[in-house]
Amino acid sequence: MNYTFADNINGLKPSAIREILKLSSQPGIIPFSAGNPAGEAFPSKEVAEISNAILEKDPIMALQYSVTEGYAPLREYIAKYMKEKYSVGSEDDDIIITSGAQQVMNLVTKVFVNRGDTIICEDPSFIGSLNAFRSFGANLVGVPVEADGIDLNALENAIKISENVRFLYTIPNFQNPSGVTMSLEKRKAVYEICKKYGVLILEDNPYGEIRFSGEDIPTIKSMDTDGIVIYAGSFSKVLSPGMRVGYAIANKEIMAKLTVCKQTDDVHTTLWSQLVSYKFVTEYDFEAHLEKIRSIYRRKANLCMRLADEHLKPAVDYYPVEGGLFLWCKLPENIDMMEFTMKALENKVAVVPGTAFSVDTAAKSDRIRINYSTPTDEQIINGMEILGKLLK
Amino acid sequence: MNYTFADNINGLKPSAIREILKLSSQPGIIPFSAGNPAGEAFPSKEVAEISNAILEKDPIMALQYSVTEGYAPLREYIAKYMKEKYSVGSEDDDIIITSGAQQVMNLVTKVFVNRGDTIICEDPSFIGSLNAFRSFGANLVGVPVEADGIDLNALENAIKISENVRFLYTIPNFQNPSGVTMSLEKRKAVYEICKKYGVLILEDNPYGEIRFSGEDIPTIKSMDTDGIVIYAGSFSKVLSPGMRVGYAIANKEIMAKLTVCKQTDDVHTTLWSQLVSYKFVTEYDFEAHLEKIRSIYRRKANLCMRLADEHLKPAVDYYPVEGGLFLWCKLPENIDMMEFTMKALENKVAVVPGTAFSVDTAAKSDRIRINYSTPTDEQIINGMEILGKLLK
Repeated sequence: MNYTFADNINGLKPSAIREILKLSSQPGIIPFSAGNPAGEAFPSKEVAEISNAILEKDPIMALQYSVTEGYAPLREYIAKYMKEKYSVGSEDDDIIITSGAQQVMNLVTKVFVNRGDTIICEDPSFIGSLNAFRSFGANLVGVPVEADGIDLNALENAIKISENVRFLYTIPNFQNPSGVTMSLEKRKAVYEICKKYGVLILEDNPYGEIRFSGEDIPTIKSMDTDGIVIYAGSFSKVLSPGMRVGYAIANKEIMAKLTVCKQTDDVHTTLWSQLVSYKFVTEYDFEAHLEKIRSIYRRKANLCMRLADEHLKPAVDYYPVEGGLFLWCKLPENIDMMEFTMKALENKVAVVPGTAFSVDTAAKSDRIRINYSTPTDEQIINGMEILGKLLK
Repeated sequence: MNYTFADNINGLKPSAIREILKLSSQPGIIPFSAGNPAGEAFPSKEVAEISNAILEKDPIMALQYSVTEGYAPLREYIAKYMKEKYSVGSEDDDIIITSGAQQVMNLVTKVFVNRGDTIICEDPSFIGSLNAFRSFGANLVGVPVEADGIDLNALENAIKISENVRFLYTIPNFQNPSGVTMSLEKRKAVYEICKKYGVLILEDNPYGEIRFSGEDIPTIKSMDTDGIVIYAGSFSKVLSPGMRVGYAIANKEIMAKLTVCKQTDDVHTTLWSQLVSYKFVTEYDFEAHLEKIRSIYRRKANLCMRLADEHLKPAVDYYPVEGGLFLWCKLPENIDMMEFTMKALENKVAVVPGTAFSVDTAAKSDRIRINYSTPTDEQIINGMEILGKLLK
């Protein structure tokens, strides 16, 4: 049979980089292309203890159907934690537990975007979110990212000239892939610009808790007196991505729609994951665990940046990072990025070609993304040396 | 701020029965309104054993990111099991693990349906699926369900007179809410009609494994020589709904699209749930477990039907059931269904008003749905007696 797919789905083209990423998961390959938390960052022993206790004491609760909004004590914990630590959330807001933060991107798009409507995105940006937007037929308009975050003039201009702008998608902390953190001044300005034009902000903050140097900068959501910011958080980078636990905090009116859509999407997030997350953050020392993770990524990031300076500079430039998982490297003009990426793969080093993160899928790029959380320290040392040799 | 939601979502009206269902989960209420598996049907001890072993031996694998298609050994197991036991699946087919079968409904609609396209549904049908279809702006066309399944003439007529029919949604075994099982003759005819008009079939079979009397009837998917049937299965009723593990089996070309969409929806299904499901079906006696569940539901269904005969007949009529979780009861003409439902709730018995399952949300109904899996035997005895008294 010849299948006729929905128009939105026909627009989703098979990605040229998919084959590279497939190859890159093979054994023997140095995985600079991944985005996984380091295995050593998982509190495996604690999760086992918690899980055993849950399944011994109250197995039926963990195995039965649950409510779409999420496990109430976990929702209350997050609401309180985010309010006290980051001034996120108001009396007009509510919270929903999702199957990873990816589901927030999906639900928000479903709730707000008609086919052809515009979503403004940082360019480059996280491919998973861009594809979620594309899967609803959204018109993506990219705005360049500078060393201190999104280009404000370009943002205002993009909003002005685009039709039916539904929201701005931004990752203010340790942006994926650029590693850039938006300055406080820009966050304030972004909020004011969006407020002025009646544009919502989808603030994605998966890496916020893994700042390993410098000072926290207030979230855009903490400035949200007008109910225009939808905040997406995640346990993937601070506890476990395999569990699939994320959340959204937004105005109650928005939340009611997100909840109806989540009900039709997957009914509720796996209860075991929610229970384990809840017990971990309340019965163990979550802050000490975060400190441990931060010190792991601090070590790995510093190692990676030191080796980049040694092997890749001055030909290659990158934004120094204070958190997150990635180095975004600019190749010299005389090097073809895709050719370099393929050459690296032949030499057993997998990086992600910059084009993967372009809002315009036909755009060229002179960048590669290097992940330092997944490879071992030894792999980082060997991999950076190999990339350095290839450059010469 | 005044929010502007997507057109598809504006069409999702808050359900009038939501309040009833909320009330019905309060303590002291007899929960004939639920759809939960019986607590005693969960293999709690086995799940705890399996989970403990996984988290002791290979915690990082369980906690790390995984592939969108699902855990490969589980996919292979299901493919083999469904092929050998139910002749489901061919060389042209592939399988994806989903976050419950609800996600199959969501993904299939996303992949095939443009706003305004038609989905043909059995009428009444499962509200969760109907709402998933509605959430993409589908035009739902209902076809009556008879004692042996869908009305064939009405089905062919509905396909003929509707525009852009994308698929037929059917639950052939122990249909929710009617309890009806489609005859073999009708399954063959449904397949031929859909083939003739180039209409896909979404075959939802969450209850197939809990047939407690009578003989299995071949699935429609087992007749699928043309790649027109998408089969949805689930572990929710045979293992645990809280784990959120379902799956789809369909032609590889369809599967490629479902996979891209699942990636943007939630990346992958919770890995712990997939690992536990896999180990349970391969390391324990799954067939013996199914027999145990069937005997629980046989007892509860028989008890419920015997009491319906005693307290509700002849005023109330219902289709006798050979599996599944529900009795679909027709009230006498002189009784207003909503009034009866509210009266029952005042008397601490919660049933679901038939209107909840109508394809046309404005339609009237003289039916109520009674679930016998969630209440205890004692609650079934008391509840049916109360309903009987109310009838008089």
